[in-house]
Amino acid sequence: MKSFLNEDFLLNNQTARSLYHECASTLPIIDYHCHVSPKEIYEDLHFENITQVWLYGDHYKWRIMRSNGVEERFITGNATDKEKFFAFASALSKAIGNPMYHWCHLELQRYFGYYGVLNENTAEDVWNLTCQKLKSQDMGVRGLIQKSNVCFIGTTDDPIDSLEWHVKIKEDKSFNTVVAPSFRPDKALNIEKTEWCNYIEKLSLACGFEINGLQSLKSAINARIAHFLACGCKASDHGLDYVFYREATDSEVDLIIKKALNGEAVSVEQTEKVKTNLLVHCAKQYARLGWVMQLHFNCMRNPNSTAFERLGPDSGFDCIGPNNSSKALAQLLDALYKSESLPKTVLYSLDGGDNAFLDTLIGAFQGVGVAGKMQHGSAWWFNDNKQGMREQLISLANLSLLGNFIGMLTDSRSFLSYTRHEYFRRILCGLIGEWVENGEYPNDCEQLKKLVSAICYDNAFKYFSLK
Amino acid sequence: MKSFLNEDFLLNNQTARSLYHECASTLPIIDYHCHVSPKEIYEDLHFENITQVWLYGDHYKWRIMRSNGVEERFITGNATDKEKFFAFASALSKAIGNPMYHWCHLELQRYFGYYGVLNENTAEDVWNLTCQKLKSQDMGVRGLIQKSNVCFIGTTDDPIDSLEWHVKIKEDKSFNTVVAPSFRPDKALNIEKTEWCNYIEKLSLACGFEINGLQSLKSAINARIAHFLACGCKASDHGLDYVFYREATDSEVDLIIKKALNGEAVSVEQTEKVKTNLLVHCAKQYARLGWVMQLHFNCMRNPNSTAFERLGPDSGFDCIGPNNSSKALAQLLDALYKSESLPKTVLYSLDGGDNAFLDTLIGAFQGVGVAGKMQHGSAWWFNDNKQGMREQLISLANLSLLGNFIGMLTDSRSFLSYTRHEYFRRILCGLIGEWVENGEYPNDCEQLKKLVSAICYDNAFKYFSLK
Amino acid sequence: MKSFLNEDFLLNNQTARSLYHECASTLPIIDYHCHVSPKEIYEDLHFENITQVWLYGDHYKWRIMRSNGVEERFITGNATDKEKFFAFASALSKAIGNPMYHWCHLELQRYFGYYGVLNENTAEDVWNLTCQKLKSQDMGVRGLIQKSNVCFIGTTDDPIDSLEWHVKIKEDKSFNTVVAPSFRPDKALNIEKTEWCNYIEKLSLACGFEINGLQSLKSAINARIAHFLACGCKASDHGLDYVFYREATDSEVDLIIKKALNGEAVSVEQTEKVKTNLLVHCAKQYARLGWVMQLHFNCMRNPNSTAFERLGPDSGFDCIGPNNSSKALAQLLDALYKSESLPKTVLYSLDGGDNAFLDTLIGAFQGVGVAGKMQHGSAWWFNDNKQGMREQLISLANLSLLGNFIGMLTDSRSFLSYTRHEYFRRILCGLIGEWVENGEYPNDCEQLKKLVSAICYDNAFKYFSLK
Repeated sequence: MKSFLNEDFLLNNQTARSLYHECASTLPIIDYHCHVSPKEIYEDLHFENITQVWLYGDHYKWRIMRSNGVEERFITGNATDKEKFFAFASALSKAIGNPMYHWCHLELQRYFGYYGVLNENTAEDVWNLTCQKLKSQDMGVRGLIQKSNVCFIGTTDDPIDSLEWHVKIKEDKSFNTVVAPSFRPDKALNIEKTEWCNYIEKLSLACGFEINGLQSLKSAINARIAHFLACGCKASDHGLDYVFYREATDSEVDLIIKKALNGEAVSVEQTEKVKTNLLVHCAKQYARLGWVMQLHFNCMRNPNSTAFERLGPDSGFDCIGPNNSSKALAQLLDALYKSESLPKTVLYSLDGGDNAFLDTLIGAFQGVGVAGKMQHGSAWWFNDNKQGMREQLISLANLSLLGNFIGMLTDSRSFLSYTRHEYFRRILCGLIGEWVENGEYPNDCEQLKKLVSAICYDNAFKYFSLK
Repeated sequence: MKSFLNEDFLLNNQTARSLYHECASTLPIIDYHCHVSPKEIYEDLHFENITQVWLYGDHYKWRIMRSNGVEERFITGNATDKEKFFAFASALSKAIGNPMYHWCHLELQRYFGYYGVLNENTAEDVWNLTCQKLKSQDMGVRGLIQKSNVCFIGTTDDPIDSLEWHVKIKEDKSFNTVVAPSFRPDKALNIEKTEWCNYIEKLSLACGFEINGLQSLKSAINARIAHFLACGCKASDHGLDYVFYREATDSEVDLIIKKALNGEAVSVEQTEKVKTNLLVHCAKQYARLGWVMQLHFNCMRNPNSTAFERLGPDSGFDCIGPNNSSKALAQLLDALYKSESLPKTVLYSLDGGDNAFLDTLIGAFQGVGVAGKMQHGSAWWFNDNKQGMREQLISLANLSLLGNFIGMLTDSRSFLSYTRHEYFRRILCGLIGEWVENGEYPNDCEQLKKLVSAICYDNAFKYFSLK
Repeated sequence: MKSFLNEDFLLNNQTARSLYHECASTLPIIDYHCHVSPKEIYEDLHFENITQVWLYGDHYKWRIMRSNGVEERFITGNATDKEKFFAFASALSKAIGNPMYHWCHLELQRYFGYYGVLNENTAEDVWNLTCQKLKSQDMGVRGLIQKSNVCFIGTTDDPIDSLEWHVKIKEDKSFNTVVAPSFRPDKALNIEKTEWCNYIEKLSLACGFEINGLQSLKSAINARIAHFLACGCKASDHGLDYVFYREATDSEVDLIIKKALNGEAVSVEQTEKVKTNLLVHCAKQYARLGWVMQLHFNCMRNPNSTAFERLGPDSGFDCIGPNNSSKALAQLLDALYKSESLPKTVLYSLDGGDNAFLDTLIGAFQGVGVAGKMQHGSAWWFNDNKQGMREQLISLANLSLLGNFIGMLTDSRSFLSYTRHEYFRRILCGLIGEWVENGEYPNDCEQLKKLVSAICYDNAFKYFSLK
């Protein structure tokens, strides 16, 4: 019997323990995809209590409370911070087997030095302890990042963003972690959304020229890409409900855009034509600049329309969106490959059932120059748990080269989430250790550390062209 | 090496053994969904031999025999009971890794005190022993139920059923197990089936008024729901090949129903409109009454038309029916949520690949008042095995709150199947034990027993409003 | 800690070790489905170096190199054999967890007596050693087959093939392994392909009569089946991208064929009508002759059109092709069952997510006479790894009768691949051992060996009517 979440958590054999403690745990973190605020980093935001860190913006935790029958008042409503924390602590005891249980306790250990259990009975103590600790100067955003040994943060940013906070962070020589923007142009592509026209106006403003059709929209995208490049951007991100691929001529797409700018409705088919055209255009720019293209898909957004009207998007109501995107995804990559404009690409599906397909698909579009040009991204969102991570790693190992994997990202809004890298690294070392102890890979310490180091740090370093 | 099916079967660590022997095994069984006959319970049916219990109605066992090349004569035909038993015993030896192998031997141990192996060589002994034991007074249906510590049985009943046997059981003070009907109105909804018109006539007769359109059909459903309520019903069940959601006005649906009552054919689209309307209507009644709505789907019924013509439905020829029901299911729940008429709901897909999707979907529609209002039902039918149960539990734990799960049901036609609750409880304790021994959840004995007790008994007790 | 790939590789318990060493490892190999060349067998081809054996035709290995960013010159291009081997050895180190890692080292052990590790540092030694060993007389194709204890080889052959090499092998009394052709008429059915007309001409030539419509095409198929039968054929194989079932009258199909023979284009619907008709026709012949019908599906061929143009088919660019083929597959089997012309059938999907569906589907179409008439084939191609094999075995065990499984095949072009039978047998014994040691199946040595022997040898022997 191992004690709860001790130093050998998830490390169930000697090889795993050596690999983790002597290698993985010592490596800096490259968090190449997350949703933290550069403003908060620049201003070194401090928190008054743990509810502000844990519960103000974390829809994973809201979901757990709702699954426990908690009223919305204690989740996103006007209950006090302390009441909210207690409602969460009470639900957490039922979360046996849930990664949230591990994440919370890892965060309490690593950032607050609390090695006990959080439940109804200890909530008061944990509340007081964490309030006390959060007063410390080094418990602000910058302190948390530095404690976590993070060397690179890739935020997620809208094309119209001025990136002023990124510029300020870069100029601030007192802070060593590199914070780079990532280009996420979903709003520019989502022509089917009611907000689109309004967004295009803002984009036009950001660019200083009118957008009245396909050409000017592409120019606007290019202008903002140039701005992002100047601010250190290395990667882009596209959030697609499902993957589409529908070819159309530029002039046809131009007409649809003009119609939409006039406020006319666009059909699903027209939407897919516009998005395909623009996505291909974006990909070509990324390829030219050596940026990484990330594609996230098979997500069902806002299925509960009542909750969406009340609380808006990203409030903990999204689901896995199973969709057979295989044909469209293959067509998209094929078109880009054919025109020699396929960028380094990371594919993430929210449906874990897509793992094996994706691992074979990337194998059909690899390239020279960079080992592992095409990547199947780390287990994402709902798959970001012990089972999901192991399945992604095993499938990738079976069907591709695990040694070229770029590893973990947090995808998080919280500055305490860096423990998810620890979680991933423990799972990775656990898995590799199992293989070695079972005689499935040679027990060559140096080679194993090289592999672990590559997956936890070196591969991402090269892939995102860091220095 | 553990000996075969000993007292620690499926309990591979000390925590699991404690949890099972000191907690799970002592709890009464709530079998909230099954297909046993209330008449047989009332009449305390006795059996002459094990073939009558095992092979007269169990299509799982028929399937195993067919997979062994056994002639239909020895399965559903006119071979003797003893010949049938021998044909089954011979096939069983090849069923290594099949839950049937475990179920049969658990039943032989628990109900017949036979701790050996059943195979070709022992079939004669087992036949004799079981014939002997079945003569005992306490080996009738009531004795089997009492031996199994069953406190609640939810049968599955057609709306036109008089429920006379339920009433008689209720009046019989010598029998303590509560036996309640469940409302399963599939035949009333299945407008595409040739038997529908005929069924509607019977329903009309049961209600005492004519059914000539949507309104009267709804009234009929309501009348039968009222009757079921009076007889102690707590839950409904809908068996859908796949989940549909197609909106239509009441007047449009009324016209389709009138057409169908006139013997005209209805299209797939029309069928889905009628079924959607009626399912939503039913759900509203369930919500009003606090009943549980169970939805079973992704089943391919009767793919072998020749066998269907010869042997009829439910003869062991059904399959998993993979179908992307995600959009329709989300729309159905959304419509009910929006109109504040979403009842407590349990979702069961026959396709285990739907697990993760369902576990995220329920998270988008939870409610206050009851913790775990939306449930992902226990691994069903073809998934009801060690692997399938573990996968359902792990997925639920990862993506929802396992602590609020209402646990196991037999879905069985047999009075020996209560050992499947034992099977589930051993798997549950095994899994929780693993987590605890690996340091993934605190080794807090009291809290662990609370969780096990909740999943095996308490949650279902509250969920089905038992007293 | 087990040493790397030692004699107990994949055998993690005592029962597994006994079963493998005392039973499974001693059984001859029936490789009923592969792609080796009968000409090379007849001529007893010898190799100059390991690149000729490993890298000339193995697209699994090419894929691994491409995933490592290796230039095509070192894969299929004009680099030297030694350069290619070094490029592969270097990529292999990163293939931790990949079956290729195990296959390569098993082959080096079994055929070359090399028990070390292959990597960048040892590549020179391994190159020299293997070149040396390959000079030996018994390291030609026949020697490799005999060393591997292969008693039956089922090759894959086109209907127009003269089968001359099969005839010669049969006549050569110095070689004891039976080598039989398998009938793979894909090219005759693929009416949608541009090469079809050209192929039909060749087929016509092989038959000695004109093919000008459905009847003569069927006659041609029958004629070639008769020729294959005369040459010892026991099985057929159909490679389908996805499973279709679209009924049409003979006269409609005849018209489509005539159109296509005139060079007119055929629609997807027309293609499916023709293929359905011909597939059903073929199946009826197989049923009549007692041949086995193998159906391989859910494969995405040549998604990378640029690579396809450069390197042609089967060059390592294919993918898993997820497709919901459930309805069509059920309809196909139903139609054949109804007309009493369903042959012994093995279903293989490239999408492991189909496992459970297939295991339930075969249960709906079993027949008398042969136990396990309907089979779910061994984990295929991308699933042919430890995880994939275990999942196939566990699903089959859960939902069918594992004891009737016909077991492994290599599907390989290489004469060193017989170690994949060893790999399968170790995994099978490992799994059965786990069950037994956990008390899930009785520890009855004789019965266990009977099961292992059946799955590794006896069942296939009977199924393919060997003598």
